[in-house]
Amino acid sequence: MSEPNDRILGVLGGMGPLASAQFMLRLTLLTPASRDQDHIPAILWSDPRIPDRIAGRAGTGPDPLPWLLRGIDGLRQAGCAAIVIPCNTAHAWYPDMVAHSPLPILHIVDAAAADLDALHLDSRRIGVMGTVPTLQLRLYQDRLAALGWDCIQPTDDEMRRLILPAIAQVKVNRLAEAHPPLAEAVNLLAARGASAVVLGCTEIPLGILAGPSDALRVPVIDTIDSLARASIRWARPTAEG
Amino acid sequence: MSEPNDRILGVLGGMGPLASAQFMLRLTLLTPASRDQDHIPAILWSDPRIPDRIAGRAGTGPDPLPWLLRGIDGLRQAGCAAIVIPCNTAHAWYPDMVAHSPLPILHIVDAAAADLDALHLDSRRIGVMGTVPTLQLRLYQDRLAALGWDCIQPTDDEMRRLILPAIAQVKVNRLAEAHPPLAEAVNLLAARGASAVVLGCTEIPLGILAGPSDALRVPVIDTIDSLARASIRWARPTAEG
Repeated sequence: MSEPNDRILGVLGGMGPLASAQFMLRLTLLTPASRDQDHIPAILWSDPRIPDRIAGRAGTGPDPLPWLLRGIDGLRQAGCAAIVIPCNTAHAWYPDMVAHSPLPILHIVDAAAADLDALHLDSRRIGVMGTVPTLQLRLYQDRLAALGWDCIQPTDDEMRRLILPAIAQVKVNRLAEAHPPLAEAVNLLAARGASAVVLGCTEIPLGILAGPSDALRVPVIDTIDSLARASIRWARPTAEG
Repeated sequence: MSEPNDRILGVLGGMGPLASAQFMLRLTLLTPASRDQDHIPAILWSDPRIPDRIAGRAGTGPDPLPWLLRGIDGLRQAGCAAIVIPCNTAHAWYPDMVAHSPLPILHIVDAAAADLDALHLDSRRIGVMGTVPTLQLRLYQDRLAALGWDCIQPTDDEMRRLILPAIAQVKVNRLAEAHPPLAEAVNLLAARGASAVVLGCTEIPLGILAGPSDALRVPVIDTIDSLARASIRWARPTAEG
């Protein structure tokens, strides 16, 4: 029943379930389509029972890797031809997952890098914002550095004073209150030379989008949207210029 | 790795993909949870290539039933223990799907009926709003009548003048403009004796929610939320009173 070029996207989600639901929404809204049948076939494996990634990485909780591999196997058996993972921290296990998976896994940092390229910035210096574990794991900084980007990040004081309280506000749905401190953090990175800022977590973009975009001195990149755009390019290579 | 009472929910979606993404969001937001691991394991089979349900039902397009059954088989093979379908029109094939599926399929109209029961209304007369095909197929009216509800629906004039233009506004994201005509249609049903109104499509709730709820003379039921609540009751029977 399927057509030759119809490839099913596998979404390894549930980390958390809201981020993967939001990814499915953005995948749909960003796909050029005039009817249901133009959209990308996708299977979302949303297993929130996957042990906490931060504790797992720190060695203080169970290892999530067997659960990640089981999800990949399930998506492959269901007929998927590639995998995306709308969770930053899970990418700490990217090498292990790639070693296990016969399917390609699109990396969320490569997706962000493609969006950075599309901005045609004058400078290679950019800012990265995220949770403490994402920044400590250097998921963005090292992979973006390998692609030629010079990454700067918020100071400890900015993390404590602006970003962590704003993330806490977003988690309790106080989006409007989260906007001013996040905008200030973006603008402080801009003042130190960042020509754009990558928002490497799922909460920060929700706070940034809750206020006026002209409050930001430089463009920002929502990595959930970046991953959705990378998925669309994978599914519809001919739709690109 | 799974625990005995952890049952995976199968979501047969993609009809359209935005409605199924919205269902995943609402399922997450309505689940009582304080951490990722408290949420319900779910697999979303989002195959938007499923032929148009309205044309299929009218006999003017290909039959979607083989695609629906393939999705059910895929969800079963992936380990799901029940199926929900966040699409009203697809329920026209409910008897065929039940005959094929070894897994229970939670019916969206039964989910709406559970929410009606929870309102403890004084009268059994309620209103049903939806697209023309949903109302013509009598998906809500007949099944709710069998459960003891007396359903009234908008007049042809109200459909043409209020509901269809509002649905068209929602489809192009003009939610604020859709609110007044939809509120008027709810209140006209209330004036004819409806003690509540079931919103049997995915667009109408978005327009209703875009304006003040005190503009409505009776409670309304969003059937995507009803289906999410039915899913939570299925997954967590012990969490109920």
